[in-house]
Amino acid sequence: MNIAQGLAHAKKVAGNRQAVACGSVHYTWKEFDRRTDALARSLAALGVKRGDRVAVLMLNCHRYLELYYACGRMGAVIVPLNYRLARPEIVFILNDSESKILVVDKTLAPHTTGRDTFATVKEIIYIGDETPENMHNYEKLIIRGAQIVASADETMDDEDLAGLFYTGGTTGRPKGVMLSHKNIVSNAIHVAVAAAYTERDIYLHVAPMFHAGDTGSTFALTMVGARHTFLPMFNPVHFMQNVQEEQVTVTFVVPTMVNAVLHHPDIDTYNLSSLRRLTYGASPMPTEVLKLGLQRLGQVFAQGYGMTETAPLLTGLDPVDHLLEGTPEQVRRLASAGREVFGVEVRVVNAEGQDVEPGEVGEVIARGPNVMQGYWRMPEATAAVLIDGWMHTGDLATVDEENFIFIIDRAKDMIISGGENIYSVEVENALYTHPAVLEAAVLGIPHPVWGESVHAVVVLKPGMEVTEDALLQHARTQIAGYKVPRSIELTAEPLPKSGVGKILKRDLREKYWQGKSRNVN
Amino acid sequence: MNIAQGLAHAKKVAGNRQAVACGSVHYTWKEFDRRTDALARSLAALGVKRGDRVAVLMLNCHRYLELYYACGRMGAVIVPLNYRLARPEIVFILNDSESKILVVDKTLAPHTTGRDTFATVKEIIYIGDETPENMHNYEKLIIRGAQIVASADETMDDEDLAGLFYTGGTTGRPKGVMLSHKNIVSNAIHVAVAAAYTERDIYLHVAPMFHAGDTGSTFALTMVGARHTFLPMFNPVHFMQNVQEEQVTVTFVVPTMVNAVLHHPDIDTYNLSSLRRLTYGASPMPTEVLKLGLQRLGQVFAQGYGMTETAPLLTGLDPVDHLLEGTPEQVRRLASAGREVFGVEVRVVNAEGQDVEPGEVGEVIARGPNVMQGYWRMPEATAAVLIDGWMHTGDLATVDEENFIFIIDRAKDMIISGGENIYSVEVENALYTHPAVLEAAVLGIPHPVWGESVHAVVVLKPGMEVTEDALLQHARTQIAGYKVPRSIELTAEPLPKSGVGKILKRDLREKYWQGKSRNVN
Repeated sequence: MNIAQGLAHAKKVAGNRQAVACGSVHYTWKEFDRRTDALARSLAALGVKRGDRVAVLMLNCHRYLELYYACGRMGAVIVPLNYRLARPEIVFILNDSESKILVVDKTLAPHTTGRDTFATVKEIIYIGDETPENMHNYEKLIIRGAQIVASADETMDDEDLAGLFYTGGTTGRPKGVMLSHKNIVSNAIHVAVAAAYTERDIYLHVAPMFHAGDTGSTFALTMVGARHTFLPMFNPVHFMQNVQEEQVTVTFVVPTMVNAVLHHPDIDTYNLSSLRRLTYGASPMPTEVLKLGLQRLGQVFAQGYGMTETAPLLTGLDPVDHLLEGTPEQVRRLASAGREVFGVEVRVVNAEGQDVEPGEVGEVIARGPNVMQGYWRMPEATAAVLIDGWMHTGDLATVDEENFIFIIDRAKDMIISGGENIYSVEVENALYTHPAVLEAAVLGIPHPVWGESVHAVVVLKPGMEVTEDALLQHARTQIAGYKVPRSIELTAEPLPKSGVGKILKRDLREKYWQGKSRNVN
Repeated sequence: MNIAQGLAHAKKVAGNRQAVACGSVHYTWKEFDRRTDALARSLAALGVKRGDRVAVLMLNCHRYLELYYACGRMGAVIVPLNYRLARPEIVFILNDSESKILVVDKTLAPHTTGRDTFATVKEIIYIGDETPENMHNYEKLIIRGAQIVASADETMDDEDLAGLFYTGGTTGRPKGVMLSHKNIVSNAIHVAVAAAYTERDIYLHVAPMFHAGDTGSTFALTMVGARHTFLPMFNPVHFMQNVQEEQVTVTFVVPTMVNAVLHHPDIDTYNLSSLRRLTYGASPMPTEVLKLGLQRLGQVFAQGYGMTETAPLLTGLDPVDHLLEGTPEQVRRLASAGREVFGVEVRVVNAEGQDVEPGEVGEVIARGPNVMQGYWRMPEATAAVLIDGWMHTGDLATVDEENFIFIIDRAKDMIISGGENIYSVEVENALYTHPAVLEAAVLGIPHPVWGESVHAVVVLKPGMEVTEDALLQHARTQIAGYKVPRSIELTAEPLPKSGVGKILKRDLREKYWQGKSRNVN
C-alpha cells in the first residue's frame, strides 16, 4: 500500500480523462502523472531523499495535489501547514519537523521573511510569477525535472511515513501526527466504500487541503479516477459558481460553510443540482442548519466524523439517514455522527473500558489500519492516546439502540456548572432554532460558586433583530433551565474561525474570560 | 483483516435489517450473527480447531453463507466442493485436504455412501429433515451451540488460511487454491469499490456458492450490510421470479445463464427493473448475447474477469463502458474484460516479460493482496505460476490504447491450424451473430496435415432451422477464411456444462476426437 499506487491506477484506467480543473488549468491523468514525476525528479535533484520532510504552505490549487503525489512516489514526507497559524507556530513546525524544503505560494510568501529562523530549510520553492531571487520557481522545476533521466520513484512499504500533519496549533504546542502510507491508503479505501465514489465523480477541494477533512477524500478520489477541482479558499459565491460550472458531484465542507451558502441571498440564482453528496464534518453541525440544507439542496448531506489522528474517517451518517420526516428516533439522528465505517472499529466506552449502554455517556475510541503511528517525537503524548492499539479520541458520545453515535462534545468543551454536565452543542442547537440566529457559540466562563457558568456568543442574521432576553426566553422553551445561558453577548462580528472554518472557542473563551469575568452572574 | 470482521460490522450497522432471504426463511444480521456464533461453538464441540478443514457439499442456501462465517470466525478452513464433480474427485479432495468435517445437504447426501473411503472425515453434518443416524443435524447443532458457554471465536491474522478452493477438477488432479483471510478481505474491498455496493443492495446468489464468481461478491456485500438472497441452482424462471419478488439489485451470472434468461419465452412477463448491476464472468461472453441483453435489460451489465487463484477479481468492465452506440473503438469494448480494478496490478506481457504494445498478444499477469498463497501441498505447481509475486494466469490477451484488456482465449484453448493461431472465442462470436444460434462451442480436433482443424458444435434456438452449409457461409462473412470451421455439428442437446455453467470443451473435445476423428476434412 502506498499513495502513488492510486495515481498509477488512475493513469491506467482514466489516462485521457481530466484529472484536475483549477481555474483555467486542466490536465489529464497522464499529464498529471508526468508533472508529478518531473516534480519528484527535481526535488531529488535539490537533495530530497526518501524520508526527508517537505513542508507546504499554500492555498488550494492543483499543485497541492501534485505535491502530495510527488512526495508520495519518491518517499518524501509531506508536512502540510495550516496557513492561519501565526508565524512563530510556522517556524516551530518547520524546525520540529526538520523540513528540508518549503513550498510556498505567492499569497503566503510573506511568511518566508526572516528565513534564517528556519533552521533546517535548505530550499524554498515558490509558486507564482516573479520568483524571488533566493527561491526556485515551481513550474520551472517541473520543466527541468522532465529532462532529468533518472526516475525518483521509490518502492514504499506500508509503514513508511507519508506525512506529518500538525494539529493543536490553536492550543499549546503543535503535535505532528505521523500518518504512514498504509494509514492514508486504508482511509482512502474506507472513504471510497463509504461514499461509493466512482470515476464519474467530480470533487471540489474547498476546505483547506492541509486539513484532514479534505485529505480524507483526496486519495480516495484519485484511486477511482474521479476528477478534482479547486477553490483557493472558501467564499460562498465562488463555491456556488464552481459547483455550477464544473458540475461538482461531491465535496467536503465544514458547517460554517454550509451556513454561509444557505444564507447567501443569491443562492437561488445558482444551479447546484449536480451535487449528489455533500459531506460535512470537522465540527458539530447545528441541526437547524442541516434541516434548512435538506430543504434547499435535497437529501445530499452526509456526515463524516473523525480526526487527523485517524487519517481521518471513523463514522459516517449517510444521506439515507438524513430524514426530515420519519419516526422521532430517525429524525433525532440528524444530530448523530452516524456509525462506524467499514474497516474501522469504533466503540464508546465508560471509564472501565466497557461499551456504554444506549443513552450513557462515554469516550469514543477507535482501532483500524488508519490509526496514526503516533505523534512525531512525542512518545509520552502518543502513549496517552494510543492504548493497546486503540486511539482514545477524548470526544464524549452516546449511542442509540442501532449503534448510531451522538457526539456530545469534545471532552474539554463540556461545561460543568453547579455539578451538572452541560454539553455546549446542545445549547447551541437550541439557540440555532431561533430564526434570527446566524451563528452561535456556547462556552463555560468561570463562576465563583458554580465553577463555570454557561455563556453564549451569538451573531444575528443581517437585518434581523432580537433582544438578549427574548433569545434566552426562546432557549428556555427548548432545553432544561440549568442549560440555558446565564449570560449572552450579541455581536455583529463574525465569530473567529480556524483555518478549516471551525469556530475558535478558545479565542472566545480568552476574550470573555479576561474582559467580562466581572459581568458574570 | 479477517472474514469475521465484515460480519461484525454488518451486525453493528445493519443489525435489525434483513441479512438473508432464502425461500421463506429470513434472518436479520443480529440473528444471522447469533446463528453463525452458535454453529461455530458446535463445530468446536465436535472437535474442530483453528486450521482444521471443513468441507461443504451443498446447493446454494443461507446456510452456505453461515458456514463461510462460522468457519471464518473460529479460524477453521472451509473447503467448498463443486457438486458436479464425480465421486472419485470428491473423495480425492476430502482426503487431499484432510477434511475433518463434511457438511452435506439432502440433495447431495448420496455422495456420502461408502464414507469409509473418506480417510479423515470424523463427522458428517446433514442439512434436511430425517437426518441419517450416523450424521448430525445442522439445525440441531445451532440450537445446541447456543447453549455452549465458551465462545469459539479466534483472533485471526492476515496470513491465516481461510479456505481451500479446488480448481481444475475437470482436467487432471484438482489443485487446492489456498486463500488467506487477507486474500478474501482484500478482494471484497476491491469488489465493493469497483461495484459501489451499498447497504441498499440486494444480491442474488444464483451461480454456485462454491465458485469464485459468486464468492467474489459474497464478502463484499456483507461488509457493507447489503442483503443476500439465494436460489439452490440456476433456472431461468426461478431467476426471474426471485429478481422480481426480492427486488434484486445486483447479482453474478455466467454467460450461459444470461443467454437462457434472454431467450426464455416468458421474459416479458417479469419485472426485472430492480437490477442495477448484473455482473457476468467465468467464461467468455458472446458479444451478440451481450448486445441482446443491453437491449432487453438496459445498461446494467458489468463484466468481472478473474480466477480462483486471485480471489478472484482482476479486471472490470463497467456499465458505462457497455455501449451499443458510440465510436467503433467504444463498441468494440463490449468484447473487452475491462481494466484492472483498484488494488490489483494487471499487466499483459510478452515472452520477455515486457508490457505488450496495443494489439500485440501476451499473457495476463497480476499482483496484489488478493493473490493466493499457493496450491495446497503442491510447491512445484505453485512455483510455476507465482513468479516474483506475480500470478501468471495462462490467459492470452491484447490491450488497446486505453488499457482495456481483451482476453483472446485461455492459453490451452487456442487452436493452432496450419501454423495459424485461431482463438475459439472469435469464431464463436461469429457463429452467435446468426439469428438461429443459441449456443456455440469451437474447438480444435486433430488433423494429419494442419495439426488441428477448427470444429464447431452448435445448438439452435427452439423452432429455428439452418443448414450446416448456410451457417458456415454466414461465418465466412464475419471472419477470415482460415478461421471458419472446417466441420460443424448441429445438435438439439444442450452443450455439457460445468457446475458453474461454463461450457465443457474438454468433454466435447473427447467426444469428437474419439467418435468423429475419421470425419474431419
